[in-house]
Amino acid sequence: MRIYGEEHPNQQILSRIATNDGHGENSSYFDGWKAYEKDPFHLTDNPTGVIQMGLAENQLSLDLIRDWMKKNPQASICTEEGVSEFKAIANFQDYHGLPTFRKAIAQFMEKVRGGRARFDPDRIVMSGGATGAQETIAFCLADPGEAFLIPTPYYPGFDRDFRWRTGVQLLPIHCHSSNKFKITQAALETAYRKARNSHIRVKGILVTNPSNPLGTTMDRETLRTLVSFVNEKRMHLVCDEIFSGTVFDKPSYVSVSEVIEDEPYCDRDLIHIAYSLSKDLGVPGFRVGVIYSYNDAVVSCARKMSSFGLVSSQTQHLLASMLGDEEFTTSFLATSRTRLCGRRRVFTDGLKRVGIHCLDGNAGLFCWMDLRPLLKEATVEAELRLWRVIINDVKLNISPGSSFHCSEPGWFRVCFANMDDTAMKIALRRIESFVYRENDAAVQAKNKRRWDEALRLSLPRRRFEDPTIMTPHLMSPHSPLVQAAT
Amino acid sequence: MRIYGEEHPNQQILSRIATNDGHGENSSYFDGWKAYEKDPFHLTDNPTGVIQMGLAENQLSLDLIRDWMKKNPQASICTEEGVSEFKAIANFQDYHGLPTFRKAIAQFMEKVRGGRARFDPDRIVMSGGATGAQETIAFCLADPGEAFLIPTPYYPGFDRDFRWRTGVQLLPIHCHSSNKFKITQAALETAYRKARNSHIRVKGILVTNPSNPLGTTMDRETLRTLVSFVNEKRMHLVCDEIFSGTVFDKPSYVSVSEVIEDEPYCDRDLIHIAYSLSKDLGVPGFRVGVIYSYNDAVVSCARKMSSFGLVSSQTQHLLASMLGDEEFTTSFLATSRTRLCGRRRVFTDGLKRVGIHCLDGNAGLFCWMDLRPLLKEATVEAELRLWRVIINDVKLNISPGSSFHCSEPGWFRVCFANMDDTAMKIALRRIESFVYRENDAAVQAKNKRRWDEALRLSLPRRRFEDPTIMTPHLMSPHSPLVQAAT
Repeated sequence: MRIYGEEHPNQQILSRIATNDGHGENSSYFDGWKAYEKDPFHLTDNPTGVIQMGLAENQLSLDLIRDWMKKNPQASICTEEGVSEFKAIANFQDYHGLPTFRKAIAQFMEKVRGGRARFDPDRIVMSGGATGAQETIAFCLADPGEAFLIPTPYYPGFDRDFRWRTGVQLLPIHCHSSNKFKITQAALETAYRKARNSHIRVKGILVTNPSNPLGTTMDRETLRTLVSFVNEKRMHLVCDEIFSGTVFDKPSYVSVSEVIEDEPYCDRDLIHIAYSLSKDLGVPGFRVGVIYSYNDAVVSCARKMSSFGLVSSQTQHLLASMLGDEEFTTSFLATSRTRLCGRRRVFTDGLKRVGIHCLDGNAGLFCWMDLRPLLKEATVEAELRLWRVIINDVKLNISPGSSFHCSEPGWFRVCFANMDDTAMKIALRRIESFVYRENDAAVQAKNKRRWDEALRLSLPRRRFEDPTIMTPHLMSPHSPLVQAAT
Repeated sequence: MRIYGEEHPNQQILSRIATNDGHGENSSYFDGWKAYEKDPFHLTDNPTGVIQMGLAENQLSLDLIRDWMKKNPQASICTEEGVSEFKAIANFQDYHGLPTFRKAIAQFMEKVRGGRARFDPDRIVMSGGATGAQETIAFCLADPGEAFLIPTPYYPGFDRDFRWRTGVQLLPIHCHSSNKFKITQAALETAYRKARNSHIRVKGILVTNPSNPLGTTMDRETLRTLVSFVNEKRMHLVCDEIFSGTVFDKPSYVSVSEVIEDEPYCDRDLIHIAYSLSKDLGVPGFRVGVIYSYNDAVVSCARKMSSFGLVSSQTQHLLASMLGDEEFTTSFLATSRTRLCGRRRVFTDGLKRVGIHCLDGNAGLFCWMDLRPLLKEATVEAELRLWRVIINDVKLNISPGSSFHCSEPGWFRVCFANMDDTAMKIALRRIESFVYRENDAAVQAKNKRRWDEALRLSLPRRRFEDPTIMTPHLMSPHSPLVQAAT
């Protein structure tokens, strides 16, 4: 008799998923976090520690929520005023969720989108944060080996959330700074064709709007292009809209839910939204994710899957009450946007003073910072070398573009809403000193190079001296850093 | 050029998982819930509605938790006394969990097991309830197509939790009433051999201890047999111990964590525990699941996977405080056990009065009720016919053994801790009337049969009249129901 175990005595006792590193935690995105955790900045206890600018957290308006809670003790099952609901709530485990919670979430999603789209509470499916929402959507829509197209740069967590346990692939739609990283029809076609040529079935497109890491919103035209494309190819469009409440500046936000209202030909069965309260409200600890699908079968299947990541009924109950308070949510969203806008302005103005520019942005909790002029050459290796200097010497945890699958080296995501004003000022001061130091080094190097060149004027040019390739000693003539230093 | 989509225009746009019904919700276990939901019993509003006895919920001691909360407002971030922690807690999303929470859970697990086992807080991994814990364990330990052996009868939810999205198989170890459904070495070997003969790789054994649905605990000898077996075959032992705090009677509880302390040869890398607070504390809405593995790689991988089902930080914070209060947990566990014991006794005594027996049990929130004497024949069909009568006429949602994969028809799981004393009395009264009615019918049928038989004494016996096959008109001579009626 064949004995499977005996034939393969050293066969892996764990699963392939457990041993394949598909969770993506080995990326520099997460390495930066580890560096921060080893030596975290604290104003008084560790003022020279690493400042965490790699975490897209929104701490700027939590005081508003705290104040609301003080005024509304009946909203919690843990207060004298609310404890009579304790038994019913602690026991509530229906995967449909509390009706009041679903209604309040739908209402909040409408408000965030300026009332220009309607959400049906019966299509609200709970998940364990956006992380769980993304995985659930992938499980519903694609089989292992099938693929979703995704514009670069994109949030590294998708590699875990969308791919790891589902076996689904993510294939890049390459976007570039030349048009502010917008998705073009041509890039879309190229990515699709490449997949087809490799005999990979493309099941859909996954986009984030507002974009993480760009901090920009998608224009109506691009969304229409995407909606047409998925209809034409009979594939899905998944829009991650978890930063929709952070849009703080013009142009105003356009959600896919609004675009499909104007596109009667659109097959709504192909459209799905992931949402969360982690960013817009600033409560990631509460693990509130939402899947909103226009496809009945997906709603039904995702709801069954929600058993794996329901929102705590204690949290549902509190939020149902808070988000049901329209006066509060209106004022919260307005204040939160004003504060985010102000914070971004302080940060980008500070950067500009030392010659660093960011992509124009109107949303999110981060800037997409252009450090290409500081790269010694236009390679991922040079980007990572610079990143290591910034982590280890400048003591800022920012995230290199390569960890976001960006195809142009030199871009970095810098988060600005997870700290107080003082930490922000210190971070800016550190960047300033660093840039001055780099520029001094660059000037010295330039002088040295002139001298060297005078000595070997007649020698042939070496390949690495091609002026289009940046090196440590040959800064681009357009370098804002050099301009700032001169 | 080959265009995948065009070659298969009607190809499924959703995944196989979304369309394969593998979630198991089509079982009669869940059908019973649906029947209850259509017509739920309410003492005043709907006194003739269906009483829910299909839900293993523990409502008997929630008043103790409520009282604790009243006395400890500082434990919540939603009270005047605790709101200063709001910002830190709302923002906390580290998948390691709050250190205080992990410590308190480990401490509580030790207390539940009488202090006879130690749990390291660093091995506590969070999950979205036991549902999420089971899926995470399956994802860590087995590849699609690989199998776990599982003794029958078993909790139907495992078909969803352990199998659905993981592609792992569950293969039965058939257990029987003749030895009170204990797992024997022979049954274990048979199940294993059967899998090997089908060229299925067996990755482990999954057991529940205390058992759901049996309401019994596993003896030390059986646990030793399992530990030896998995060591010998180099496979995993997963123990679902989510009812460990409900053991209310002798014999006292033995956890696998205790058994492996005495088995120095045991490779601890093979041992994993799933735990939850849903049953022991009675707070399923809070979605607190725990994976406790002795295998470092599984701890590390499960922690990464916990991103999909973290416990709300609001809930972690509250429970860290509550479970850290040793005086409270000691008194809670003692009172809860006393109340469960009392409730079970009232219920089983009531059943005995009408001649219905249950498997001897010392744990859990349910009885394993023997209605074999009421079956018209020893088949699953007859069991389901009886079940439909109980749901539709007696108006009790109890769960048929076949939905628990029981290999002997006629057993039913009846939950007794999810209702108040009045509902329990009404349920007992309904069972009583039903049994009297059935017995009257049986007596009438018996008289009619005697008369018929006198008329056709000389005719040959038909096959269905074999006295070992129970029919509606031929009750077993050992029927407790007939005894009770006479």
